Amino acid sequence: MKKLVFLLIIFCITTVYAQKQELNWREITPGVWESIIGDPEGIDLLQIAETKPRTDALQKLGKPLFPEQIKSSKAEVTDGKTYLHFPLQKEEQLFGLGLNFKTVQQRGTIKNLHVDHYNGQDDGRTHAPVPFYVSDKGYGILVNSARYLTVYAGTSVRTDSKDFPPERNRNDPQAGWEAQPYSDAVEVLVPAKGVKVYLFAGKNALEVVQRYNLFNGGGTLPPKWGLGFTHRTPTLFTDEQILEEVTAFESKGYPLSFVGLEPGWQSTSYPNSFVWDKTRFPQPKPFLNELLKKNIRVNLWINPYPGSKSPVYEVIKPYTASHTVWVGLVPDFTLKPVQDLYRKLFTAEHLKMGVAGYKVDEVDGYDKWLWPDVATFPSGIPAEQMRQIYGLKFQKMVDGWFREQNTRTYGLVRASNAGASNLPFVIYNDYYDHRDFITALCNSSFIGVLWTPEARSSKTDEEWLRRMQTVCFSPMAMLNAWADGTKPWTYPAVAEPIKQVMLLRMQLLPYLYTTFAQYHYEGKPPIRAMNLVEGFSFAAKSEKAALNSTDNPYGLALKEDMKDQYMLGDYLLVAPLFAGEKSRKVILPPGKWFDFYSGKLAGAGEVIRVTPERNKMPLFVKDGGIIPLIPPALHSPTKATVLPLTIRHYGEKEGSWNLYDDDGETFDYEQGAYTWTKLEVTKNKKGLLKGNTPKPNNKNFRYKNIRWEFMTPSN
Amino acid sequence: MKKLVFLLIIFCITTVYAQKQELNWREITPGVWESIIGDPEGIDLLQIAETKPRTDALQKLGKPLFPEQIKSSKAEVTDGKTYLHFPLQKEEQLFGLGLNFKTVQQRGTIKNLHVDHYNGQDDGRTHAPVPFYVSDKGYGILVNSARYLTVYAGTSVRTDSKDFPPERNRNDPQAGWEAQPYSDAVEVLVPAKGVKVYLFAGKNALEVVQRYNLFNGGGTLPPKWGLGFTHRTPTLFTDEQILEEVTAFESKGYPLSFVGLEPGWQSTSYPNSFVWDKTRFPQPKPFLNELLKKNIRVNLWINPYPGSKSPVYEVIKPYTASHTVWVGLVPDFTLKPVQDLYRKLFTAEHLKMGVAGYKVDEVDGYDKWLWPDVATFPSGIPAEQMRQIYGLKFQKMVDGWFREQNTRTYGLVRASNAGASNLPFVIYNDYYDHRDFITALCNSSFIGVLWTPEARSSKTDEEWLRRMQTVCFSPMAMLNAWADGTKPWTYPAVAEPIKQVMLLRMQLLPYLYTTFAQYHYEGKPPIRAMNLVEGFSFAAKSEKAALNSTDNPYGLALKEDMKDQYMLGDYLLVAPLFAGEKSRKVILPPGKWFDFYSGKLAGAGEVIRVTPERNKMPLFVKDGGIIPLIPPALHSPTKATVLPLTIRHYGEKEGSWNLYDDDGETFDYEQGAYTWTKLEVTKNKKGLLKGNTPKPNNKNFRYKNIRWEFMTPSN
Repeated sequence: MKKLVFLLIIFCITTVYAQKQELNWREITPGVWESIIGDPEGIDLLQIAETKPRTDALQKLGKPLFPEQIKSSKAEVTDGKTYLHFPLQKEEQLFGLGLNFKTVQQRGTIKNLHVDHYNGQDDGRTHAPVPFYVSDKGYGILVNSARYLTVYAGTSVRTDSKDFPPERNRNDPQAGWEAQPYSDAVEVLVPAKGVKVYLFAGKNALEVVQRYNLFNGGGTLPPKWGLGFTHRTPTLFTDEQILEEVTAFESKGYPLSFVGLEPGWQSTSYPNSFVWDKTRFPQPKPFLNELLKKNIRVNLWINPYPGSKSPVYEVIKPYTASHTVWVGLVPDFTLKPVQDLYRKLFTAEHLKMGVAGYKVDEVDGYDKWLWPDVATFPSGIPAEQMRQIYGLKFQKMVDGWFREQNTRTYGLVRASNAGASNLPFVIYNDYYDHRDFITALCNSSFIGVLWTPEARSSKTDEEWLRRMQTVCFSPMAMLNAWADGTKPWTYPAVAEPIKQVMLLRMQLLPYLYTTFAQYHYEGKPPIRAMNLVEGFSFAAKSEKAALNSTDNPYGLALKEDMKDQYMLGDYLLVAPLFAGEKSRKVILPPGKWFDFYSGKLAGAGEVIRVTPERNKMPLFVKDGGIIPLIPPALHSPTKATVLPLTIRHYGEKEGSWNLYDDDGETFDYEQGAYTWTKLEVTKNKKGLLKGNTPKPNNKNFRYKNIRWEFMTPSN
Repeated sequence: MKKLVFLLIIFCITTVYAQKQELNWREITPGVWESIIGDPEGIDLLQIAETKPRTDALQKLGKPLFPEQIKSSKAEVTDGKTYLHFPLQKEEQLFGLGLNFKTVQQRGTIKNLHVDHYNGQDDGRTHAPVPFYVSDKGYGILVNSARYLTVYAGTSVRTDSKDFPPERNRNDPQAGWEAQPYSDAVEVLVPAKGVKVYLFAGKNALEVVQRYNLFNGGGTLPPKWGLGFTHRTPTLFTDEQILEEVTAFESKGYPLSFVGLEPGWQSTSYPNSFVWDKTRFPQPKPFLNELLKKNIRVNLWINPYPGSKSPVYEVIKPYTASHTVWVGLVPDFTLKPVQDLYRKLFTAEHLKMGVAGYKVDEVDGYDKWLWPDVATFPSGIPAEQMRQIYGLKFQKMVDGWFREQNTRTYGLVRASNAGASNLPFVIYNDYYDHRDFITALCNSSFIGVLWTPEARSSKTDEEWLRRMQTVCFSPMAMLNAWADGTKPWTYPAVAEPIKQVMLLRMQLLPYLYTTFAQYHYEGKPPIRAMNLVEGFSFAAKSEKAALNSTDNPYGLALKEDMKDQYMLGDYLLVAPLFAGEKSRKVILPPGKWFDFYSGKLAGAGEVIRVTPERNKMPLFVKDGGIIPLIPPALHSPTKATVLPLTIRHYGEKEGSWNLYDDDGETFDYEQGAYTWTKLEVTKNKKGLLKGNTPKPNNKNFRYKNIRWEFMTPSN
């Protein structure tokens, strides 16, 4: 009997382990390798995003070697699932793994990657649970599956680990017992019989991210108006109320580039009709025209679920899920008839009338509102996969409608996933923690998505100022007043500094637009976590925390994390202040850094503490930084506008920076209608800095009267 | 092309829907039906718990009809998963679905049932994610799967619902739009190709629970010492320090029935040796003997993961998982050689020396510490299933060791599951919210598990008093001072009332022991949520809550829930006070209720507000209630002890109650060595109440000098 048991065990061990395999990697474009494990499923993320690698840009980025440590990766298909194993070095740091709100460094965490409304814990349930992680050792891994993946990012310890952690006696206070022993692997559970995995190499984390973004088609290039200021009006506002609101912005001197209309623009909502409400908007086209004359665009709230009052309802019924969302139908957007019906209705009812974009709500969660995982879809795609791709697919559809009109859009979405970098959407949510909003900004930079820390309302003047300041240094500067009706000037004590920071946002357009062009053409994210900054190293220190039977029964070591400051483009370091703070710590990467406002030296490769004027958000510019500005304006420039340009230089260094421009509205840049202009600062024989004023002979260069401004006093 | 797409869709629809089936129910014991769907897996929960229905008791409970509404249940096997669909009536309430800490009524929630340390959200990740729910319509459903199940408990709305909720326009404030429209089903996702489902009927929720518990073998019957008071000493205490602690209890007059030794009893811990530390415990047997002489038992902390210093380490290695827990091995307890090795070591090292029980830690989670779901086990059982059954299996093993010695045990465990009611363990955790601890007490009563709201330490005297009071009205009255070193008398201002409530616990032994006998023989849980009380009805009221863009963007209606009071046995209503409260609301079920201390009328079937003396926990007794008490004592009685008995009667009604007794230590009761004695109160001709003193001629009746005490003054 014992013998039999033993043999059975040996058999089981052999069976289980026999399926383990080394991964075969095939280089598919320079620095990008693919490995096909088992039998991958018909639906995956990149396929839904219809990504097309930017081959030219990838070639230009160079051809890095295959990352040595990934050679010993393993995979295993068992219990109908695929188990992946990627080695980790000691001290290695990991980033990414979805849009996280609490932490930037992800080593030592576990994620159940699942599209959902963020619930306050970095557990993988989030708006963009992108199954991609970046290592500071110069590589990134994408698990291209539309299933709910579980990722053990350096938490698991195998008995057969080559570098098995030492055993320590917790009873001995001197033994250095650790709650989380060293783990030498990232392990991933893919609940499917196979999967495609992609490996991205790079000389540093930024280059890995660039390669990842370029592989997915590069970053999106928003229309210029998309980088202005946007205000979302209360949900039941009429056309006249909106026009009044717009007039108020203008008369008070607050910039506005696009207005957001909430569910009330429709005749019925939750479920939706997708057609204009005749009482609140008797004549939508003239209304939209009037706004457009002021160069103000309109964005419409929707969620994708139609009710019986919608013209698509009856036709679409056969192509919808077994379950409803707020009793609305759940269209299967992977089916062509559905895609056609939506394109037709939305193009005729909105795009042709002048609507410039959408806010796509509730494609993420919460679980309570969405279809359950037991729902079935006519395409046969399981509800789980549908959940992971729904927001991604919808973005892709909307992108297509606007491309057909040769008009760029820039909208909002609550769910995204891998492969979304070139889709013209910014993620938002109902969560409202200011600090966590900034952490999400940092994290968005690793995973090819954009995020807005939108402002809604605040408990105090100070909080309102702080929130509005950070909004102006994000991918979408948004006040979302749908429920609260707040205006930028609602808190009189801070109305003026808020106006100033909004106008500064408008002035920064050439810098912002070029930063997004870098995203598009080079794959560099517009917002960059500090860990993406070249030469920036910040050791994740562990310190032993106090044991406590309730809050910390395992005496877990705490890790410092770099999550409250970030780079906007190449030169601008943004260090937000939060309500209650009079001063803050800023970690300056190597080299000298200068105060944005005064041009004075702030520090060099060090940790400084700043106590800024209340009205000024701490902003620092890298030595040699070049920041082009246009005059403050209430609206974004049209393609017909040619504007004067002031080019600021900070610090002591020579340098050059390429300014991008195009019409800012259409897709003509894809046919070559764009220009990069070199802005250059050199030193003369006396060592004095001098700006070489560009004279481009290119109709895509929409600037005139170029003026240099040397900000740092010593010049 | 369009035609092809259309045909493909029709094909898909047909394929998906064709697999849908009605359930076939087979009555397997009176009032219990089984339905086998698809191809159930080799491992399930009841099989691991090795449950044996108490057939006699089930027969006695009667033969209810098949619940009408369950007839239209459906199942479907698709995408390698089983989808279950059980109809719900309007106004129906659901209970159970795991050990929840925030809510009692579970309709309208979604659970991902997953053994884990409770994380502060009732999302299904908990210590006992029992896949069982009870309806107030008189039935219960158990999904007997060891997978991670997702349960949509009345949240999903199907397009083909017979009672499809009306469409309402959210733009119309008068339309009565609801964030959660009426759902007519519980839907369950079982990630396996089949499953066994059990249906339990009953005339009310309590009878359903009784049937469920009896089907699982009835409830556990603890040794009498298990119902006394227990104190867990700091982890590195030596034998002498423990003896001093015991002496302190005695000299100060605080009762103590068993002591808990934390990891430091071992030579090494985390990972564990499972053998005594020679420096702190040079002579474990004499030490245990000395305690036993005082009639004090010892409980040992363990987690199941051995390190290299353990005698089992080398032998067990081939029978362990691919992964470790704190670098300790993870034994595959489904394998006989592992079971044998553990039984041998633990019996010799602990049981034979006099150890009376275990505290089994970290068989639940957290994810960070436990093996990942990509771990493999030599038995071939997937890690997911292993996670769901590990605590259950370990309980079963420990139960077996003690049964072999014909000695009852009563211990602690951090993970359990379906089928555990007859296992001698109480669940505990690291969470420490006093209110939530009480909610968990209520919830434990639906799912066949026991829970202790252990006390550790407190911020204030008042909190300490409140926590110690509730601990004394729970299945295990425990002070867990492993990290904090707190004693019952640590807060001098409340030391005396705490002593009084601990002594009251000791006095209540005959009542408590009989209450547990009811659990064992009749399936009635010792702690009972109010929703299990006969005739108790408390409509879950919905009220519209204020819309708010951040906290409540959907204006979700709030529901009142009954979660801060409960029944202990048939007669005692426990209404804990929490720190900061001077008074509280108590909901009295139909009939008259009397104050436990004074015997005075408190109210009748109404909501009362009580402002008790600070030192007295609000306790109420049902009209006709019979509560037998023994004199206050510092230790639990042994089997040789015969004690005087005071039988209290409350209120105005005649009545009778059966008092249970046996030796309180062995399993001889399973061979018939027990007795039920009828305690009866009748009215004489003048209408005065009179207690009929029992005169049992049975050696299992260990009481003498019986005295009646009529508590209600009017007598």
